[in-house]
Amino acid sequence: MPVLVMKFGGTSVATLDRIRRAAKRVGVEVAKGHDVIVIVSAMAGETNKLVGYVDETSPLYDAREYDAVVSSGENVTAGLMALTLQEMDVPARSWQGWQVPVQTTSAHANARIEAIPTDNITRKFAEGMRVAVVAGFQGVSPEGRITTLGRGGSDTTAVAFAAAFGAVRCDIYTDVDGVYTTDPRICDKARKLDRIAFEEMLELASLGAKVLQTRSVELAMRYNVKLRVLSSFEEMDDAAGTLVVPEEDIVESNVVAGVAHSRDEAKMTLVSVADRPGIAAAIFGPLADAGVTVDMIVQNISEEGRTDMTFSCPVGQVARAEKAMEEAKARGEINFHDIIADTHVAKVSVVGIGMRSAAGVAAQMFRVLAQEGINIQVITTSEIKISVLIERKYMELAVQALHDAFELEKAG
Amino acid sequence: MPVLVMKFGGTSVATLDRIRRAAKRVGVEVAKGHDVIVIVSAMAGETNKLVGYVDETSPLYDAREYDAVVSSGENVTAGLMALTLQEMDVPARSWQGWQVPVQTTSAHANARIEAIPTDNITRKFAEGMRVAVVAGFQGVSPEGRITTLGRGGSDTTAVAFAAAFGAVRCDIYTDVDGVYTTDPRICDKARKLDRIAFEEMLELASLGAKVLQTRSVELAMRYNVKLRVLSSFEEMDDAAGTLVVPEEDIVESNVVAGVAHSRDEAKMTLVSVADRPGIAAAIFGPLADAGVTVDMIVQNISEEGRTDMTFSCPVGQVARAEKAMEEAKARGEINFHDIIADTHVAKVSVVGIGMRSAAGVAAQMFRVLAQEGINIQVITTSEIKISVLIERKYMELAVQALHDAFELEKAG
Repeated sequence: MPVLVMKFGGTSVATLDRIRRAAKRVGVEVAKGHDVIVIVSAMAGETNKLVGYVDETSPLYDAREYDAVVSSGENVTAGLMALTLQEMDVPARSWQGWQVPVQTTSAHANARIEAIPTDNITRKFAEGMRVAVVAGFQGVSPEGRITTLGRGGSDTTAVAFAAAFGAVRCDIYTDVDGVYTTDPRICDKARKLDRIAFEEMLELASLGAKVLQTRSVELAMRYNVKLRVLSSFEEMDDAAGTLVVPEEDIVESNVVAGVAHSRDEAKMTLVSVADRPGIAAAIFGPLADAGVTVDMIVQNISEEGRTDMTFSCPVGQVARAEKAMEEAKARGEINFHDIIADTHVAKVSVVGIGMRSAAGVAAQMFRVLAQEGINIQVITTSEIKISVLIERKYMELAVQALHDAFELEKAG
Repeated sequence: MPVLVMKFGGTSVATLDRIRRAAKRVGVEVAKGHDVIVIVSAMAGETNKLVGYVDETSPLYDAREYDAVVSSGENVTAGLMALTLQEMDVPARSWQGWQVPVQTTSAHANARIEAIPTDNITRKFAEGMRVAVVAGFQGVSPEGRITTLGRGGSDTTAVAFAAAFGAVRCDIYTDVDGVYTTDPRICDKARKLDRIAFEEMLELASLGAKVLQTRSVELAMRYNVKLRVLSSFEEMDDAAGTLVVPEEDIVESNVVAGVAHSRDEAKMTLVSVADRPGIAAAIFGPLADAGVTVDMIVQNISEEGRTDMTFSCPVGQVARAEKAMEEAKARGEINFHDIIADTHVAKVSVVGIGMRSAAGVAAQMFRVLAQEGINIQVITTSEIKISVLIERKYMELAVQALHDAFELEKAG
């Protein structure tokens, strides 16, 4: 029978009632003739509680023990989901990560899945079991210790199982009903997309539209797993949600698929840097060593051997970036007059695979922002994305204006 | 280094503070030169919460899934205890049942430990680890599924580890500071015993003095594991608690070690049973089949081919016992005029290995009760125990009078 993977996030299994509701959806898919692998998260709040215990016990904790503790929430949900399905007369059993086993690296708290042997579960399917409920987010290291995959890891578990079992689809049930052209809280014309390309989803995920974890989308793209994002709180409907698919499955589309935004940006400027070959390496090497995630970079034209170097990074990393720069200066590796941090900025991006073949998207974007009187501070572009850093107070205005200009309220 | 097993029950690890307190005691034993195996229960309330989830999800649950769910509480405590010890610079790591592995039967929710391989933990001790923290109450079946040992199973885990590792002692930390000559809530002269024999502890445990789980005492007796019961809430003191030891280690003692009581008793009487050879088997066979735990039995003298048969069982089994008897009557296997259940009874027992060599204990017990005007309804005796069923309202009086009569407030 065709295998379907269904993943339920923490809010979708937050109570016994919600677990029952999720189990009903599983039952519908079983009735349609699927063998189903259900990946479950911990009941909402449980993982945070356990992480809190660990943090309070040991601020610099042993990640192996952290994993042993925080993985337990998923085990509870897996057992309860199996029991709920059995109550509905659906043959089901639970698997913990080590039982499959979900083989991972030893990078505790942030492990990567290396292999998922399918023989145990496949044999059970052959014996008449219809649903394998698997605790998400966890695996087992070569040393036989429990590992976890990091935040959002259950999405990755789901996609990895879909890849390993050649699933017809991987349905990610969450508390939003799909991927939108932009944040509906900012722009009331935001439209739910029926389909989106992996590449677009990746750009949107990394830009803060946290519907799917980036790593899970990468994995889905690599193994060509058809992903669907849908809400566990809406009525069941086959056309529900958003399909995340390979580019070639998107028959026709808008040039721009969506407008993303991020408030979590700071702009750092090194004023009057002594310009010389290798200066970029001298700046960004120490920043990388300090764990600063530099996003956009712009270098002014050099005048009289000096230049201004501007980059953006997450707001929470500003102090670390400043420290790294001052230390590099003290070591004589770089020379600058001043370092200025501006945390009143935001990033707005337009994303779309159609931009590959359509010219003039950047020009149109800049024109729209200019018409609204919004000054662009930094620009970066990729094949399918244009991002600008602007003053934060204009963020909502920029999103709305771009959504209108690219007519995203209309289906492509 | 000598191995010491320390077991902390749910109330002893109910909060992070209490886990720290328990860890300090472990640290003291490590400093004394012990390699320590710590067995932990779930934080108080956690297991009940999980059992509640299972009961609500599926009243006739699959015991395999029950075990997968309810075992998770111990995993959390084990990780937190290991982290707490590491914070105190004590080299420690946690083990879940399947990691040791604690090999059990497949009798889910009530499994028995079959084997505990010592090589993994012994190797870690040799490498410098000082504390192995093991999640109690759980193991793994031959099929690779998680099992639990039933209520109080962590005591059994502790004793089994002590036996497997040839531990110098198995310390059971709980919320009482030892075994008393009787229930201090009933008799204010109750005295904590420094030592008690396994056999006495077994009789007291099965009589409702729930300090240690019966199975763990049996196991300790079989493998000659020196057990100590002590409070994790009192100051540390080597002389603390009660040692449960082989009979030969009790140098001198009172004839009677303690007075036990149980309210959870019902007296059932089959009135005017047709008496014939095999009638006892005809009555108690169906009761055993119905899962009724018959304790005391008394048969009156037969008159004109009829007799009254009286037995006691837990209060909660009365309905089941009545049903089993009516059905046996309907099948024509037994014949009686009436069945009477009396739930206003209590059992009072005196226990002591000294009774083996001392005559007259029973006579003295009956005399004391008679002096207080307490009528004895049923009597049973064993080598080291005399139990009587009396009207429940006299229970406290009987306990106090017997405690006085056998001078239990004085050390033997």
